[in-house]
Amino acid sequence: MAMKRAGVSAIRALCSSPNFTRYAHSTAGGKKIVGVFYKANEYAELNPNFVGSVERGLGIRGWLESQGHQYIVTDDKEGPDSELEKHLSDLHVLITTPFHPAYVTAERIKKAKNLQLLLTAGIGSDHIDLKAAAEAGLTVAEVTGSNVVSVAEDELMRILILVRNFLPGYHQVINGDWNVAGIAHRAYDLEGKTVGTVGAGRIGRLLLQRLKPFNCNLLYHDRIKIDPELENQTGAKFEEDLDAMLQKCDIIVLNTPLTEKTRGMFDKERISKLKKGVLIVNNARGALVDTQAIANACASGHIGGYSGDVWFPQPAPKDHPWRYMPNQAMTPHISGTTIDAQLRYAAGTKDMLDRYFKGEEFPLQNYIVKEGVLAAQYQ
Amino acid sequence: MAMKRAGVSAIRALCSSPNFTRYAHSTAGGKKIVGVFYKANEYAELNPNFVGSVERGLGIRGWLESQGHQYIVTDDKEGPDSELEKHLSDLHVLITTPFHPAYVTAERIKKAKNLQLLLTAGIGSDHIDLKAAAEAGLTVAEVTGSNVVSVAEDELMRILILVRNFLPGYHQVINGDWNVAGIAHRAYDLEGKTVGTVGAGRIGRLLLQRLKPFNCNLLYHDRIKIDPELENQTGAKFEEDLDAMLQKCDIIVLNTPLTEKTRGMFDKERISKLKKGVLIVNNARGALVDTQAIANACASGHIGGYSGDVWFPQPAPKDHPWRYMPNQAMTPHISGTTIDAQLRYAAGTKDMLDRYFKGEEFPLQNYIVKEGVLAAQYQ
Repeated sequence: MAMKRAGVSAIRALCSSPNFTRYAHSTAGGKKIVGVFYKANEYAELNPNFVGSVERGLGIRGWLESQGHQYIVTDDKEGPDSELEKHLSDLHVLITTPFHPAYVTAERIKKAKNLQLLLTAGIGSDHIDLKAAAEAGLTVAEVTGSNVVSVAEDELMRILILVRNFLPGYHQVINGDWNVAGIAHRAYDLEGKTVGTVGAGRIGRLLLQRLKPFNCNLLYHDRIKIDPELENQTGAKFEEDLDAMLQKCDIIVLNTPLTEKTRGMFDKERISKLKKGVLIVNNARGALVDTQAIANACASGHIGGYSGDVWFPQPAPKDHPWRYMPNQAMTPHISGTTIDAQLRYAAGTKDMLDRYFKGEEFPLQNYIVKEGVLAAQYQ
Repeated sequence: MAMKRAGVSAIRALCSSPNFTRYAHSTAGGKKIVGVFYKANEYAELNPNFVGSVERGLGIRGWLESQGHQYIVTDDKEGPDSELEKHLSDLHVLITTPFHPAYVTAERIKKAKNLQLLLTAGIGSDHIDLKAAAEAGLTVAEVTGSNVVSVAEDELMRILILVRNFLPGYHQVINGDWNVAGIAHRAYDLEGKTVGTVGAGRIGRLLLQRLKPFNCNLLYHDRIKIDPELENQTGAKFEEDLDAMLQKCDIIVLNTPLTEKTRGMFDKERISKLKKGVLIVNNARGALVDTQAIANACASGHIGGYSGDVWFPQPAPKDHPWRYMPNQAMTPHISGTTIDAQLRYAAGTKDMLDRYFKGEEFPLQNYIVKEGVLAAQYQ
């Protein structure tokens, strides 16, 4: 990563001098790189492209070691005795993922005296204390775009699963039953329904494109309007007032990053103003919503269905209320880690490491924190 | 229905003279109409638009009775002691559905001396012995188009459920587990995959349009090519040779009617030539495939996933092998009976009854057998 000392931010100016060593040019000697991934276990051998696992470690071990770098991979990320914790004191680069997130707290950043670079293999770096990372002058980057298609496809699947009431039918099949009425009384077509996305960034826009042929009434809310050409192509209408949009929606999809502003934005009060029977899809972040308020509204029927793959914390504990609430279509955090997505974010992570070793810039859109300065959408 | 005696077909010429009374103009007096639907039971009161049930009987009772017709509705359709059987001897019109099919055999047609008209509330009249109906000089008609969007949407949902490996993740959630690897090792994006539809009639074409934004390689096989404009719009390529197409496909969708030519077309031999791990979606008819061959290929992994809502017979018995085979995403027959579809096919059935009473023609595309002559695609 190129060092641009002229651009040192106010935050960086506040950093204590020992941290300044973090800006040392990365090419000075072999680096210690730690990757935290989920374990594949018995599934490791079933697919040669399963690179996002501990066992495959993004497929970059040979490449790293041939250049004299040390590469540790683990899934053991929680608590003071974890494998991750052991390496904090001398690692230079930490690779994490949103699927099995290593929570990079201010305390951990403080311990990691040699840390220079935090890479997210995937998209979404909210498991990192970005303010602390910025204050420590670190760079945080993700593989922007690597799995946006994967997530958008998954969102459309979840919309259809909810609106068409798929799961009660599936349960009948495996339970030896047959009761069409038990499904049909609340199964609908997607056609003609009002679908609103909260956020129309890369994923939201891909979702709108995929929704277009379904002849829905498409709405979106974001800070800024999308490209007029795309607006025209999808027929999606901009809604400046979030709550005004939400109250029109039969189906709401969350496509906004988790920030201090968006945390808990779907609380009891906001949910109470939604249409009765509204369907909600959330593949963005679990903490965008109030966990118990969602569970209560599903139980009362005010929310007609809730589907997503994001929880807080992750892994979700066995007693997480979303596991047991009615009309849920939840999975573990999976939508961005299809085999296709893994191949893309492994390639993107390798590319950034290569640029880091060579002292080159990353693709601009990948930066979350660039040498201590938070990207605009996180400020 | 207008009588066109000049057009009497060869088959009709073979009919015995008593059947000729079936051509009598329908307006002569009140008619006895029997409708066979599935029961809503406790779900009847949950949705005022649940018109496709026994309890609501398409919402046409008041209208029929006000015109002096008799209207019987039942779900009791099997065997000699069934409610349906009791009314066979004197009914004039029988309304059935594909979701809870009353099997209208040659024997039943013979018993139904006054029968003139068989209406399918929905699409797909293969539960009727069409040859026998034609020989008896009957008219068989369905509400073409009433639920094609419903079925196409459902097919796209099933494609995504299989390709993205949704169900193992859902099972983890409800079982208190969290194992991303157990899902991810065989979860893929739809983007870039080769999807082929066997049949590109109304439903197949709607599916192709909905698949378009997913950036797949789209193929279709049918007797004739689709409209060049639609081919251009969807980018779907015509494949004249069915087996040549099937062997290219990652995902195969069945969109062809069940006829004597298509019955059992996916047998052990044809399945054995498909790509290993192929995904199959069948919302067309269960009898298009060999039940046990599908179950065996799912068990061996040759088929990577099978999803659909059609079985033979229906309701599927408790021991139907598809209930218990791996990687299935089955439901009871539901895709064409969403609330939106019910409202459309109820309206379409009412429209045809109205035309029948007035001696008017039906919309041409609704005819399966028109006064003893089988429509072209069933010949």
